[in-house]
Amino acid sequence: MSPRLNGVIETALYVEDLPRSVEWYKRVMGFKPIFDGGDRLQAMAVADKQVLLLFRKGASTGVLEVPGGRIPSHDGDGHLHLAFAVDESEIPAWREHFARENVPVASEVKWGETGRSLYFHDPDGHVVEIITPGFWEVY
Amino acid sequence: MSPRLNGVIETALYVEDLPRSVEWYKRVMGFKPIFDGGDRLQAMAVADKQVLLLFRKGASTGVLEVPGGRIPSHDGDGHLHLAFAVDESEIPAWREHFARENVPVASEVKWGETGRSLYFHDPDGHVVEIITPGFWEVY
Repeated sequence: MSPRLNGVIETALYVEDLPRSVEWYKRVMGFKPIFDGGDRLQAMAVADKQVLLLFRKGASTGVLEVPGGRIPSHDGDGHLHLAFAVDESEIPAWREHFARENVPVASEVKWGETGRSLYFHDPDGHVVEIITPGFWEVY
Repeated sequence: MSPRLNGVIETALYVEDLPRSVEWYKRVMGFKPIFDGGDRLQAMAVADKQVLLLFRKGASTGVLEVPGGRIPSHDGDGHLHLAFAVDESEIPAWREHFARENVPVASEVKWGETGRSLYFHDPDGHVVEIITPGFWEVY
């Protein structure tokens, strides 16, 4: 039996160009920049309760010494996937928003009677999804 | 101005061996398997409110046709990072739990007056963190 845990707080993507990604996640997804880690890391708030970490590819391959300790090395590559929760009632607004911001919707999936996903790509080709409730037993 | 969005719901890791990862995230992190996608995907519930997707590396490089549409291709590599929220009061229990389960704590970081992180590695070398409140303005 594991001790108590309260959910995912930080999700990370590895990107080629930090300013490009920050601009995109701000403009398209509405996320707010909350931490400036220079050309290594930018952090953005998701819905005022979670954190999206944008690491520049190759910039975290060494152990990082910080005042309170050390952060192990990590680094990612490829076209990663992550999904954000949206209400079914917001889907039309998201479709209009993507059209206005010139973000092509790559695909749309209906998950049975309830639950719908829209998939699209960020500037690095990461596969971003917005999904409405109904598919997962926890959502 | 973007439409409303309710947070991160799915976070993905790409792993070599799905049964090994499911066993580890169940035993060490306490996550519950909620979807069996064979040797491509296993999904686990995090704190009964979010979903950790474990994809076998290289198994999602083609577009996937599902009854309600198609899922774009994606795939990841490297040692990714993600973090889970825990209360400060649970830290001693997590330390004991890691010791009992033979999971070495790679590093511990104090973020100023409040906020503490423990870093450790999953079977693929992904850098997993548990973090207490206080560092991020949204947590």
